[in-house]
Amino acid sequence: MKSVAPTFVPDREDLRPGYRTELGSYTLSTDEIVAFASQWDPQFFHVDEGRAANEGYIGGLIASGVQTLAVYQRLSVDRLLRHWDVIGGAGIRDLRFLRPVRPGDTLTGFTVIEDVQGQPARGRMRVVSTGGLINQNRKQVLALTMSAYLRMRGL
Amino acid sequence: MKSVAPTFVPDREDLRPGYRTELGSYTLSTDEIVAFASQWDPQFFHVDEGRAANEGYIGGLIASGVQTLAVYQRLSVDRLLRHWDVIGGAGIRDLRFLRPVRPGDTLTGFTVIEDVQGQPARGRMRVVSTGGLINQNRKQVLALTMSAYLRMRGL
Repeated sequence: MKSVAPTFVPDREDLRPGYRTELGSYTLSTDEIVAFASQWDPQFFHVDEGRAANEGYIGGLIASGVQTLAVYQRLSVDRLLRHWDVIGGAGIRDLRFLRPVRPGDTLTGFTVIEDVQGQPARGRMRVVSTGGLINQNRKQVLALTMSAYLRMRGL
Repeated sequence: MKSVAPTFVPDREDLRPGYRTELGSYTLSTDEIVAFASQWDPQFFHVDEGRAANEGYIGGLIASGVQTLAVYQRLSVDRLLRHWDVIGGAGIRDLRFLRPVRPGDTLTGFTVIEDVQGQPARGRMRVVSTGGLINQNRKQVLALTMSAYLRMRGL
């Protein structure tokens, strides 16, 4: 794993709708793609480089979509969620695998706060954010809308 | 990993809307929950049993939602996707983490075909399915709607 997350500690201001956070980058190796998929998504185009090149419709080994989501989650935890008082994730809407992710691709993440709902007096909020991963060719490979419950200190 | 997938080879009949497939079961251990989350979702309530018990809002260690999705994907590959001619996944709508998944939980999956769209003459179809995971107490912990592209042999 190679992950580069800039140092950053968000505060309450960062929960304003429209606020965008850059999540840093992550480069996926062939070994990581094959190891993840061997356990969780053992379709040949995720685990067998030779067959993927010869028989895969996309031409060559590609990462599991679940792993692509996992990369987004890791970047999001390092840069944002680790600094918040998270109760738990509620769900994901519109998770889209827009383009294949291939060995050696460097994925750079972003998150935009869309909405903050809840009862500040009770200190519990539901935060809705959109996010994505962009590859080294500036093409977006993943898009999603996520909901999570947070406690807001000091509200 | 403990995965029990019954032997089953689906055929074209299994792509009829309404067709339901049981995906078998998977039991997640503490070690698997911590190992996965250490790499992909290192929030304390996924990786630190002591802190999760003392400080977590849900009370004890819980699996990452991304890992819960990965369990669904693994069961789905073993039972269904491995037998189909899959081009690739398109996306997931309405992924919901309905209840916490805890160490030792046995998750049993199901998939229901919702819609099959496309051009049979060109042999490429978009299959929309809903799926879920149920725990050993018969409570659903995960729900999702998935779209994938398949080639249909012999259409």
